[in-house]
Amino acid sequence: MRMYDIIMKKRNGKELTTEEINYFIEEYSKGNIPDYQVSALMMAIYFQKMNKRETADLTKAMANSGVTIDLSDIEGVKVDKHSTGGVGDTTTLVLGPIVAATGVPVAKMSGRGLGHTGGTIDKLESFKGFSVEMSREQFVKNVNEKKIAIGGQTADLAPADKKLYALRDVTATVDNISLIASSIMSKKIAAGADAIVLDVKTGSGAFMKKEEDSFELAKEMVDIGNNVGRNTVAIVTDMDQPLGFAVGNALEVKEAIDTLKGEGPEDLTELCLTLGSHMLVLAEPTKTIEEARNMLEDVINSGKGLDKLKELIEAQGGDPSYVDDPSLLPKASIVQPVLATKEGYVKSIKADDIGKAALVLGAGRETKESEIDLSVGIVLHKKIGDYVKEGEAIATIHANSEKKQKEAENIVLKAYNIVTEEVKKNKLIKGIITKDRIERF
Amino acid sequence: MRMYDIIMKKRNGKELTTEEINYFIEEYSKGNIPDYQVSALMMAIYFQKMNKRETADLTKAMANSGVTIDLSDIEGVKVDKHSTGGVGDTTTLVLGPIVAATGVPVAKMSGRGLGHTGGTIDKLESFKGFSVEMSREQFVKNVNEKKIAIGGQTADLAPADKKLYALRDVTATVDNISLIASSIMSKKIAAGADAIVLDVKTGSGAFMKKEEDSFELAKEMVDIGNNVGRNTVAIVTDMDQPLGFAVGNALEVKEAIDTLKGEGPEDLTELCLTLGSHMLVLAEPTKTIEEARNMLEDVINSGKGLDKLKELIEAQGGDPSYVDDPSLLPKASIVQPVLATKEGYVKSIKADDIGKAALVLGAGRETKESEIDLSVGIVLHKKIGDYVKEGEAIATIHANSEKKQKEAENIVLKAYNIVTEEVKKNKLIKGIITKDRIERF
Repeated sequence: MRMYDIIMKKRNGKELTTEEINYFIEEYSKGNIPDYQVSALMMAIYFQKMNKRETADLTKAMANSGVTIDLSDIEGVKVDKHSTGGVGDTTTLVLGPIVAATGVPVAKMSGRGLGHTGGTIDKLESFKGFSVEMSREQFVKNVNEKKIAIGGQTADLAPADKKLYALRDVTATVDNISLIASSIMSKKIAAGADAIVLDVKTGSGAFMKKEEDSFELAKEMVDIGNNVGRNTVAIVTDMDQPLGFAVGNALEVKEAIDTLKGEGPEDLTELCLTLGSHMLVLAEPTKTIEEARNMLEDVINSGKGLDKLKELIEAQGGDPSYVDDPSLLPKASIVQPVLATKEGYVKSIKADDIGKAALVLGAGRETKESEIDLSVGIVLHKKIGDYVKEGEAIATIHANSEKKQKEAENIVLKAYNIVTEEVKKNKLIKGIITKDRIERF
Repeated sequence: MRMYDIIMKKRNGKELTTEEINYFIEEYSKGNIPDYQVSALMMAIYFQKMNKRETADLTKAMANSGVTIDLSDIEGVKVDKHSTGGVGDTTTLVLGPIVAATGVPVAKMSGRGLGHTGGTIDKLESFKGFSVEMSREQFVKNVNEKKIAIGGQTADLAPADKKLYALRDVTATVDNISLIASSIMSKKIAAGADAIVLDVKTGSGAFMKKEEDSFELAKEMVDIGNNVGRNTVAIVTDMDQPLGFAVGNALEVKEAIDTLKGEGPEDLTELCLTLGSHMLVLAEPTKTIEEARNMLEDVINSGKGLDKLKELIEAQGGDPSYVDDPSLLPKASIVQPVLATKEGYVKSIKADDIGKAALVLGAGRETKESEIDLSVGIVLHKKIGDYVKEGEAIATIHANSEKKQKEAENIVLKAYNIVTEEVKKNKLIKGIITKDRIERF
């Protein structure tokens, strides 16, 4: 088998065989195929596309390119959740506890990652003493006993995807649905979940700006998952403005605690209930979404979700008293409101720019080496459709440097577009894609 | 300017600016742009094409990537000829002398190259003592005084093309008309000719198998030439069977001598008169093709062409007596006919396979290091349309090893397709493409 022939075949619009895809991924991983042949193939795929079979094969080949995690000694159906990423996305901190509180196992591997704010692990480190360092045995024991554990993504999951993505990133071959979908799914599959719920973001703050593209990506991922034997459901959700109010690490933890108390932002609560109820249906403690939703609402109303968060924190060495007294969480020295310069209705909030402001304040990592400031960030007070008076606070900035606070303030002010005509609120849940159907709202 | 943006732009079907093309070629030449970005761009160009302006810009950028030859101290209009390559192509050895004999300067840089047989220089080395080693001053002096000189292609012409072609060759991005045309033309332009006559081969033995593709390539090259200020004409000619009868080095020299005496194969003679008359019209000693053709026929009939060959050989240290006594040329020890195994009409002769047989005998180079055997090769006796009796010689093999002779014999036998129905002879000249018109015959 020769890589040249594989490139030529795809360039000419032919379907690649399973063997050809396996050969390409295996040999590329080993360093036996040069980058310049792979980038040519990626560009050929950009133009000629891959069908469902090829996409599933590519996903499997990448998932098998490194360690694959075996969760079989955890009892029950393991459901993983994945979000395609946005601004102010605090769902994992809420979703983990409420799902676990219903008895469904949550065996979560999380990362730190680059971005506007830290990853789930960084956020949880707002609880003094919290750590993801534990043996595999301890991790499994925790999930079996407490139904929840959060581990670090130490294993080298789908290294072929990592190598391929880095190459696509510099050769203008990222935006092909099959390649994006297989990249995401290869890691999820290697991570060992039995079933997967995908939160596919759409809008200005998302990777996919257009709703049509988001639905297409969601469908592609659902097809891959089901093709490789993982029950997969995708929810397409709005990212035309940040989710919830808080963007930052400790600030998002505080917001998650509020949400677990039933006092969180409406959109964040709704998203967690929607994603969670689909997770429950996949995990099979109940057959209907309505019943699952009731179970989750009960868990919130009864305080069992909040208790589960405390249990998780305590089990991993953290101080659970922070949950009852969030004032113990890391706090910034400067807390300043951002005042509206005109009256009117919020028409749009550039989510990307709010993220940028959080990054400026020090909430996220620009490079792997960056230190994160857990205390800083932004809390929005007004969202799309809200009415604002001139001089009213549209947001509050939490900073540890006056210079950075001013800089963030300017970015936040510009991110808000305020108009005189009344504006309709955004619809949060845009659609649900399962194996058999596509539902749009 | 970033290479990433250039790839993205072309991928999205946009036209690249002159600056973008220059940037890409300059920085790639310097090693500042990695192969994997360039191969992605080449694949994007394969799908999105380049327009005439982009193609001309790419050609210029590649022509200017290394040494460009200045022929301005040679008097008259310097017309270069280029063939896209085939089997048994002896034209340069005939064309050079007959054009020079009319007074038009022939300043030819030739190569050795890889292929079925050697290049023009290898062939001329059949004349004992002949050498292309001379100073630039001597080269110019020879052309001004004798109207002909053949130099070695020592200068590094269009190195960016060399680098780019090597990459395209392993990434399935060769067959795009703009890229093929700019590759050929960049070298011709760097070589300094004022005008160019292109012999674009078409058929089983040519790079372009289909006539339509050959016309398209011819048109593209003519457009590039005229776009960059070089008067360019292309002739599309048949390569469905080898040109002339001889395939080999000394054997082709002998055939060239015969042709200069007016006793050469019909197709080779016709091709030389056609290409030569277009060269003369471009060099402007005459305005009409008919007049030019008469001039060339006169040169052959009067023996002036043959004298010019002798003059060239003598001027470059070779023994011109070989021209009058071709039996002095290198001779193979084994000369064996290939006998037809059935009766009928020659329907086709796989030119590629006849070339392969010559290579097997040792007439060409497989790698740069290969030694060429000047004496060996094949002389065909039957061409398309000819009638053959069983047991009649269809060709003669000149070899220096019995094993190789047998191997070549088998290949030649299989290359001939002999049928019972009468077969029409091939048309040699398929069309002429000038700046303003495309003529098909």
